[in-house]
Amino acid sequence: MTALQDRSVRPSVTTGPITGSHKTYREVDGLRVPARRVELSTGEHVDLYDTSGPYTDTDATIDVHKGLPKLREPWIAGRGSLTQLGFAKAGVITEEMRFCAAREDLSPEFVRDEVARGRAVIPVNRNHPESEPAIIGKNFLVKINANIGNSAVSSSIEDEVEKMVWATRWGADTVMDLSTGKRIHETREWILRNSPVPIGTVPIYQALEKVGGDPAKLSWEVYRDTVVEQAEQGVDYMTVHAGVLLRYVPLTARRVTGIVSRGGSIMAAWCLAHHKESFLYTHFEELCEILREYDITFSLGDGLRPGSIADANDEAQFAELRTICELTHVAHDHDVQVMIEGPGHVPMHKIAENVRLEEELSGEAPFYTLGPLATDVAPGYDHITSAIGAAQIGWLGTAMLCYVTPKEHLGLPNRDDVKTGVITYKIAAHAADLAKGHPGAQDWDDALSAARFDFRWDDQFNLSLDPDTARSFHDETLPAEPAKTAHFCSMCGPKFCSMKITQDVRRYADEHGMSTVDAIEAGMAAKSAEFDAAGGKVYLPVVEQ
Amino acid sequence: MTALQDRSVRPSVTTGPITGSHKTYREVDGLRVPARRVELSTGEHVDLYDTSGPYTDTDATIDVHKGLPKLREPWIAGRGSLTQLGFAKAGVITEEMRFCAAREDLSPEFVRDEVARGRAVIPVNRNHPESEPAIIGKNFLVKINANIGNSAVSSSIEDEVEKMVWATRWGADTVMDLSTGKRIHETREWILRNSPVPIGTVPIYQALEKVGGDPAKLSWEVYRDTVVEQAEQGVDYMTVHAGVLLRYVPLTARRVTGIVSRGGSIMAAWCLAHHKESFLYTHFEELCEILREYDITFSLGDGLRPGSIADANDEAQFAELRTICELTHVAHDHDVQVMIEGPGHVPMHKIAENVRLEEELSGEAPFYTLGPLATDVAPGYDHITSAIGAAQIGWLGTAMLCYVTPKEHLGLPNRDDVKTGVITYKIAAHAADLAKGHPGAQDWDDALSAARFDFRWDDQFNLSLDPDTARSFHDETLPAEPAKTAHFCSMCGPKFCSMKITQDVRRYADEHGMSTVDAIEAGMAAKSAEFDAAGGKVYLPVVEQ
Repeated sequence: MTALQDRSVRPSVTTGPITGSHKTYREVDGLRVPARRVELSTGEHVDLYDTSGPYTDTDATIDVHKGLPKLREPWIAGRGSLTQLGFAKAGVITEEMRFCAAREDLSPEFVRDEVARGRAVIPVNRNHPESEPAIIGKNFLVKINANIGNSAVSSSIEDEVEKMVWATRWGADTVMDLSTGKRIHETREWILRNSPVPIGTVPIYQALEKVGGDPAKLSWEVYRDTVVEQAEQGVDYMTVHAGVLLRYVPLTARRVTGIVSRGGSIMAAWCLAHHKESFLYTHFEELCEILREYDITFSLGDGLRPGSIADANDEAQFAELRTICELTHVAHDHDVQVMIEGPGHVPMHKIAENVRLEEELSGEAPFYTLGPLATDVAPGYDHITSAIGAAQIGWLGTAMLCYVTPKEHLGLPNRDDVKTGVITYKIAAHAADLAKGHPGAQDWDDALSAARFDFRWDDQFNLSLDPDTARSFHDETLPAEPAKTAHFCSMCGPKFCSMKITQDVRRYADEHGMSTVDAIEAGMAAKSAEFDAAGGKVYLPVVEQ
Repeated sequence: MTALQDRSVRPSVTTGPITGSHKTYREVDGLRVPARRVELSTGEHVDLYDTSGPYTDTDATIDVHKGLPKLREPWIAGRGSLTQLGFAKAGVITEEMRFCAAREDLSPEFVRDEVARGRAVIPVNRNHPESEPAIIGKNFLVKINANIGNSAVSSSIEDEVEKMVWATRWGADTVMDLSTGKRIHETREWILRNSPVPIGTVPIYQALEKVGGDPAKLSWEVYRDTVVEQAEQGVDYMTVHAGVLLRYVPLTARRVTGIVSRGGSIMAAWCLAHHKESFLYTHFEELCEILREYDITFSLGDGLRPGSIADANDEAQFAELRTICELTHVAHDHDVQVMIEGPGHVPMHKIAENVRLEEELSGEAPFYTLGPLATDVAPGYDHITSAIGAAQIGWLGTAMLCYVTPKEHLGLPNRDDVKTGVITYKIAAHAADLAKGHPGAQDWDDALSAARFDFRWDDQFNLSLDPDTARSFHDETLPAEPAKTAHFCSMCGPKFCSMKITQDVRRYADEHGMSTVDAIEAGMAAKSAEFDAAGGKVYLPVVEQ
C-alpha cells in the first residue's frame, strides 16, 4: 500500500479561510489562478498573493489520505521531456510560466525570458503535479521558505503535515522537509502529496541515515540512489553542498564557529575521512542528468556559510561561493534550473558584498539566503535578528528568504514558532518588495493605511498579515464591539484624536466643494471666525522673527 | 506632602540582577561606573553596558518612597549655571562627560568635543540628580528609548513606575513619560525620583489637559507654565513640535494618513483655530532661555512625520524638517542641547535621504527616530516592521531609536510588550553598532558565538539579551539539566553534530601540537589511513573534470 493509505496515520490539518478573507480564482486564458480576497466595508476588495492551496477554499474537500488534486497533470501529459529552463531557452512558454505570470501580474514572455537567462526558477518536479507553480527570481515578488521536518529527538508525521499546511496558510512560498528521524520516506510522501507549494529537501540527510549516521560510510552510490528515490516521489528542489571541497576544509579551522551547516560538515567529514574530493563535486554532471530528468531545481548549498558575525565573508565562505557559481554554469548547460544558497550570520555592512559576488559570478542565478542574522547576541529572538538582514538582502536582490524561527539555535520550532517565523519573513519580503519598487506592492500598504486613517478597524485587521493577532491586541485594550467602529483608538482616547483633526479639515473641504488646499485656507479663516464669535479668548502671539 | 510620601501609592518594582549576571562598578578617576558583568564558565567575564541603575544591584536598598540616591548632587553643587553644551564650548570637561566616556571606553576629551559640536547630547536636568548620565550621538553606542505613560483609558502610577524600572532593566537608555490621563504631575514625580535614566516628556500633552482637551484653548502662557512645572521636577528632555507651521498644515491634506503625530495635530488644530503662527515657533527663543536654565535638552518633534509608506519623505515632512533644523541652530546659540526627531513610516529605499537631510541641515545634531516602520501591513508585529528600519537608520547615523511595541496602532503596551519592544530595539541598536564598527561592539557577539560553538550552554544563555527566554526555549526541547552540558543540540541530536566535526579537527591539531592547517592536512591523511586500516571500503570517486 502507499504511505497515504496507512490509516494509522491521521493528520488533522487546518482548513477554512483566514479571518476576513476568502479564496478567489481568476480565470486567465484557461488557467485558474488563486488569490486571497479581502472584501472591504467600502465595497472595494483587495486581492493578495495566495500560497495556501485548496485548504483555505471552502468549496474544496480535503482528504489527506487522497492528497491534493493534480493541477499540473494535464499540462505535463504528452509534454516533451524538457525542463522549464529547456522550454524557456527554446522560446516555449509553458503553462507553469503563464500561471506564475498571472500570479504576479506580469507578462508570460517576461517570465520565460527570466527563466531562460537563469535569473529565475520555477521548481516543479514532474512527479509533484499537486503544486501551484511559483517563480523565484530577483525581478519577482520576494519569496520565503519555511523549514519543517522531524528529528532524532522529536515530532511525528501528523505534526509535519500540519506544519506544512500551517506554514503555507500564512504565506510560505516553499517548504523544506529536513527530516532526519524515523520514517523519512513516509513523512516526505505525506508532505508531497498534500503540498500546494514546491518542496525542497537535503538528500544527504537521508543518505546519512542509510549508512547509520557515519559520514565516512557515505558513497556516491548511496547518495545517488537517495536522490533518485526522492526525485521519484516529487521533490521540487534539492540542496546539494557540492562546493565543499577538500582544500577548503582547512580554511574553517581558525573560525570562531567552524562549520555550522549540517550538510557542509557531513561532506567535510567525508573529505577528511577519505582525503578525497567530494563525490558531490566529482559526480556533479551525473547529478545534473538525474535532476534534468525530473526537472528538479538545484539549490546549491553553502556548506561553509558563517555561523557567527566573526566568520562573515571569510575566505572559506567566498571560496565555496566561487565554486558554487562555477557549478551553476555547468547545471545551466544541462538545462537544470539553479538557486544559490547564502548566509547565515552577516553584519549589515557586509551583506551587499555577498549579493554582488553571487550575481557577478553566477550570472544572477536566484539567491536564496538564510536570514542573514545581523547579530549573534539574541538567541530566542533570531527571527528578528535575521529579519533585519533578510529585508536588506531581499532589497539588494535576493529572490527567496529562508525563514528563521524564535527557536533557532535553541530547539525545534512548534506550530506557533512556525507561524511567527512565516509572518516575520513575510514582513521582510514585503519590505523588500516595497524597496525594490515591485509594481503594485505598495497597494497593500495603502489600502491598510487608508483603512487605519478612516477608523475602519475591521478592514485594517482583515488586511493585515495576521488578522487574528491584530484583532486580539485591539480587544485587549478596547474589548467592546462598538470600539471596532469608534472614531478614536486607545492611544489618545475619545476626547482627542490626532487623526480626527485632518479628517475635520477634509470634511470641511468636501462640504464646501473646493479644492482641498483652498478649503483649508478658507477653513482656517472660518474656524478662526467661529472661534472669535464664540467669544473664545484669542491669544495673539508675539512674533519675534 | 510630596507625591512620594503618599502611602496609598504602593509601586512594587522588579529588583535583583538579570539571570547569570551581576552589577559591577569600575572606579574611573573618582567615578563609579556601572556595568552588567557576565561571569563565564571559562573563568573569563564580559562586561555589558548597563542602564538598570541600582535596581539590579544586590547591595542596594530600594525604597521607591525615598527615590534613588542623588548620584549627581555633588557634581552639580557649586557648579556654574552653564549647560553641558556651554561647558563643552568653554573647553570644560564635566563629571557627566567623564562618566559617559567611561561607560563607552572613550576619552573624555572626545566626549567634550562631540558635545561642543552639537553632534552629541547629554540630557541632564539639574533637578534630576538621580540619573546616570548617558551620551546620545552618532559616534557613540546607538541608544534606545522606551515610551510609557498612562492614558485616558487605562493604567496607574504603580504600573508606570514598574514599567520604567522594567524598561531600564532590559536596556532602555531613556524613558519618555507620555501620560495623558489622571494625576500626570504625580505620576511624573514618581518616575523621575526613581529613574536611573534621563526622562523625556511632551509638555503639550499636559498643557492640553489643563485646557480641558481643546487645542484651540491652548496659549503660550499655559504651555510655558507647564514647561516650567516639568522643568522644576527634573525632566531631562522635552519634545517640542515647533516646526509645525501654519503654512505647512495644508501640505498634509492630500496625504493618505494626514497628521498622525499627537503633538503635531494639536498644534495644527491650534493654528487652524486661530489662523496664527504656532506659539512654539514664535516664542522659541523664550523657550530656549527656560530650557537653558535647567540644562534641558530639546527633542524637536516631527509633528508632520509620515503615518504611512505612502506619505514618506513628502513635502510636509521635509518642510517641517528644514524648519526644525533652523531652530536647532537657534537653540545652540543659546547653549541648549538639541536632538531632532525623525519618522515614522518609511520604506527602506527612502530611509537614507532622511539622515542625509537631517545631518546636512542641522550640522549633525543627534537624530532620534521612531522606527521607521518599513511596511504598513503587519499591525501586531510593528516592533519587527520597525526594527528593520531602525537597524538601518541606526547604521546610517541615527543616535537614538524610539522603540515600537507589538501593540503599536492597536492598544496600550503592557509589561510584556514593553520588554519585547526593548529587547527588539536593543537588537536593532546593536546590529547598527556592529555595522558602524563601534570599537568593541563585536566582542559581545564573539563571546556568545564562542560559547555556542563550545556547547557552553549556560554561558550562551547568560550572554544573551534575554537569558530567561533563551534558557526556557532550550528547556522546551531538551529539558534535562544534562542537556545544558551536552555536546549536541536538539537540531541534529546526539548521533551527529555539525559543530562537533570542526572540534574533532581542532582537537587533533592540539594533540599533535601543530599549526592548525598542517594538523588538518596531517589529520586528514591519518584519518584516511585509520579508515583503510579498519578495512572500511574506500570509495574512489571518478574525477570527471
